[in-house]
Amino acid sequence: MELWFTEKQTEQFGITAKIRGTLVSEKTDYQDLAVIDTIEFGRMLVLDGMVMTTVRDEFVYHEMMAHPALFTHPDPRHVLVVGGGDGGVIREVLKHLPVEQAVLVEIDGKVIEYSKKYLPETAGELDNPRVKVIVGDGYVHIHENKNKYDVIMVDSTEPVGPAVHLFERGFYQGIYEALKEDGIFVAQTDNPWFKADLIRQVNKDVKEMFPIVRVYCANIPTYPSGLWTFTIGSKKHDPLHVDISKIQDIPTKYYTPELHKAAFVLPRFVGDLLK
Amino acid sequence: MELWFTEKQTEQFGITAKIRGTLVSEKTDYQDLAVIDTIEFGRMLVLDGMVMTTVRDEFVYHEMMAHPALFTHPDPRHVLVVGGGDGGVIREVLKHLPVEQAVLVEIDGKVIEYSKKYLPETAGELDNPRVKVIVGDGYVHIHENKNKYDVIMVDSTEPVGPAVHLFERGFYQGIYEALKEDGIFVAQTDNPWFKADLIRQVNKDVKEMFPIVRVYCANIPTYPSGLWTFTIGSKKHDPLHVDISKIQDIPTKYYTPELHKAAFVLPRFVGDLLK
Repeated sequence: MELWFTEKQTEQFGITAKIRGTLVSEKTDYQDLAVIDTIEFGRMLVLDGMVMTTVRDEFVYHEMMAHPALFTHPDPRHVLVVGGGDGGVIREVLKHLPVEQAVLVEIDGKVIEYSKKYLPETAGELDNPRVKVIVGDGYVHIHENKNKYDVIMVDSTEPVGPAVHLFERGFYQGIYEALKEDGIFVAQTDNPWFKADLIRQVNKDVKEMFPIVRVYCANIPTYPSGLWTFTIGSKKHDPLHVDISKIQDIPTKYYTPELHKAAFVLPRFVGDLLK
Repeated sequence: MELWFTEKQTEQFGITAKIRGTLVSEKTDYQDLAVIDTIEFGRMLVLDGMVMTTVRDEFVYHEMMAHPALFTHPDPRHVLVVGGGDGGVIREVLKHLPVEQAVLVEIDGKVIEYSKKYLPETAGELDNPRVKVIVGDGYVHIHENKNKYDVIMVDSTEPVGPAVHLFERGFYQGIYEALKEDGIFVAQTDNPWFKADLIRQVNKDVKEMFPIVRVYCANIPTYPSGLWTFTIGSKKHDPLHVDISKIQDIPTKYYTPELHKAAFVLPRFVGDLLK
């Protein structure tokens, strides 16, 4: 018997992966959660039918979420990750020595539980003493914590289900206030092939709040179109003005100091979305 | 009834696209050729079950094959395209005013015929008077034409079927000799996620022949992993030394002068393949 998992990334296009089997499949309080064992990409976390992370390609998303913003801020001591219950972004955040505390606020405790159990390569640092894990609503957390964080990372699912509020203007307002006076935030903002309107809208909304707004890309094979965007909003520090010769050497598989600049150079059709 | 086309990009991973129907499906002298009408990406040319080009995303591959090499050569008058019977690379080549003649050598005349019929946006320039179309073997053509071309582009299928010789060292030797003394060539060299060994081997082989070898990437959603590599071999001109402020303004949707440099900045795991 051959088992194949298929994600319809749009109504009429998707990816399909042969699997050895299913490790978890349950309905949590927030979403359908599954961990499946694919042959090509290893174990895969699937939420509401959408690929969240795989053992083989997770490094791209997690490195590219964490490092551009953290290397832009000159002294990132207090970092908040909203969502990201698989722990991959936290693992990358901890590679930055100035970080004293990384707070993770994940709404679905089951994501944390099963990631620790089945994705230890990704979730392994969630018990690190520099990490504080809160099972709760990131939207509420940022509105209850003013002027607290140097860097905030929004590692959300798509803007459906539990993450829908994480793409609203009120959320960016909250992030602005939760950041210190030279704070910076980054959010995953989907792909330009199928979600151009989303990228355009987020860019517009973030520009109303932050003086510096930058978009960059990375290649993630298991995400729709393989081209993912991240949007940075910053109060003071510009990721394009970083002196990359001074970037601390950390172990990575995707990010490099040279890519820190090159990732912001967008294909023309992506750049045109932001005009 | 729902019809879906699925390409297994590896034995255990692939893409799947809902289609309106099939326009052509026949066995030519060289390969299985199909043109199908997908809803997400428009008409799609499929050879031996592998996606070659689609109306919606073809611009990425064709622009990124043509422009980096052509803007690296200071006076590209004579250009050869090996393969590329869909005409997309030729269309981009003709945007360069110095080009006096672009020769296309495609082994399978049926690819040209059906591309003209069903993919006119891509193939529309094949009848341009600056273009000479030869239905024949590119491997033979380059060995019969010494010191003739300024730029050679290898727009081949995967190294199976009719294109297998286009990834051999003898072919690169032939290209070297078919190029003038300051000639440059570029080849599509597949993706680093599933074909790392191929990229490594091509890089090694091309380095034995050419003093300047560079690899760059582009995002192509319908190609395996979404991340495609191109390898340049050059006798004299280095694509990294181009003064991008002097690049002629041409209409593009992916390529930009800034991307000319940024596309060569590789993710760490890709760069590591080439060491």
